[in-house]
Amino acid sequence: MKIGRFRCDHETFFGVVKGNKVLEIKNPFSFSEYTGKEYLLKKVKFLSPVMPSKVIAVGLNYRDHAKELRMKIPDEPIIFLKPPTAVIGPEEDILLPPESKEVHYEGEMAVVIGKAIYRPKNFKEVESAILGYTCFNDVTARDLQRKDGQWTRSKSFNTFAPLGPVIETELDPTNLRIETKVNGEIKQSSSTKELIFNVFELVKFISNIMTLLPGDLIATGTPPGVGALKEGDVVEIFIEGIGILKNGVRKNET
Amino acid sequence: MKIGRFRCDHETFFGVVKGNKVLEIKNPFSFSEYTGKEYLLKKVKFLSPVMPSKVIAVGLNYRDHAKELRMKIPDEPIIFLKPPTAVIGPEEDILLPPESKEVHYEGEMAVVIGKAIYRPKNFKEVESAILGYTCFNDVTARDLQRKDGQWTRSKSFNTFAPLGPVIETELDPTNLRIETKVNGEIKQSSSTKELIFNVFELVKFISNIMTLLPGDLIATGTPPGVGALKEGDVVEIFIEGIGILKNGVRKNET
Repeated sequence: MKIGRFRCDHETFFGVVKGNKVLEIKNPFSFSEYTGKEYLLKKVKFLSPVMPSKVIAVGLNYRDHAKELRMKIPDEPIIFLKPPTAVIGPEEDILLPPESKEVHYEGEMAVVIGKAIYRPKNFKEVESAILGYTCFNDVTARDLQRKDGQWTRSKSFNTFAPLGPVIETELDPTNLRIETKVNGEIKQSSSTKELIFNVFELVKFISNIMTLLPGDLIATGTPPGVGALKEGDVVEIFIEGIGILKNGVRKNET
Repeated sequence: MKIGRFRCDHETFFGVVKGNKVLEIKNPFSFSEYTGKEYLLKKVKFLSPVMPSKVIAVGLNYRDHAKELRMKIPDEPIIFLKPPTAVIGPEEDILLPPESKEVHYEGEMAVVIGKAIYRPKNFKEVESAILGYTCFNDVTARDLQRKDGQWTRSKSFNTFAPLGPVIETELDPTNLRIETKVNGEIKQSSSTKELIFNVFELVKFISNIMTLLPGDLIATGTPPGVGALKEGDVVEIFIEGIGILKNGVRKNET
């Protein structure tokens, strides 16, 4: 089932994509409750499918990426947070801040939490807390990441967390093709089977630290091939079974 | 004016402390609107004065602390994020997680944002976005901080962001005494005049990266003298003109 958040005729709503229609639902965490309202798919604008209270992301988590960098496979995930204010939806522009000269895409699969979870007893509890999976771009100002040592500033600029287009709720996340294109050219191409810590291990690890709430997002790390974005670029993250997250790039003129 | 969030007779509300009373207000960001309801101060329980959407904290930001560590004064603030789920109020217990053997207190002054702010034009705009100041404890699992390199995990456990007891809205934050006591013994003692980046510079720097929203919190860094907490300890953060934030410490049995 493909759940999203949409805008049509000045209304914002959650819905399920079915063929050429979007069926409105009351909220994405109890998606069996349809309101009865329907919209034509071609008439709606896709928004970020959730508005997370937390975005937790994971460093170095693809085996092929670790090999490329000749780095040791970590024994525990390295996590960091991105602020909710960084989230944008499909087709919204990534804004290049004047503070950085080197802004990179990082295509990732993200887990969306459906039920609150804290210190789960087993993996069954972990699985039942997951709503589904979506595409994510962990946009990073590489020069500031190097300068600061701590990754937070470089990953926290407004628009640095594109998300969507939908949450796929019926998907085995363990072997999905993941690809990033810039201006149509393939830059990253891997499979989620290359994840060092799989999504269930990540949710367990992170929910042992902090309570995860409905809508919270876990970005699972990026495969090899990250690189720079410049004004006018179009970046697309494709994940098999989910869809394509597409965003333009322009200067922040604020 | 001292603004807080309180609980009394199963009701939760925002209020202004006046003498031995708490006068209820509609919300902390438009505190001129009193509801007319009053409570006796001795009957209310103090909660965390706000529920921030973001907690942004700053590394090494006291001159005397930098000297103690013989570290170079940084040319820009180093920021990190703590999750909103880590926030607790006065008199709530800090829970020691089984994952760490070395949990430290870090007494800090925190800025509370009153109005949304993004890429402000000048310091006047910065000042008008600040609601006031409160006490904060940037609780940190020092062993995990060292292990990970990235600071996020070590600072993100539930209960690792005690906050309160009130937001003081009429205060010059540039020269306030700040003290941390553990079991009545002074462990940290400094003045906010030792801040390398003052609160106005911090709000400007951070709001150039991300939109700050009403209730968002900026923890301004800790003076020298951080140290370990153990089960049964009581830790108090005192800031001149604000009050005392007091929390117990026990094991996380979840």
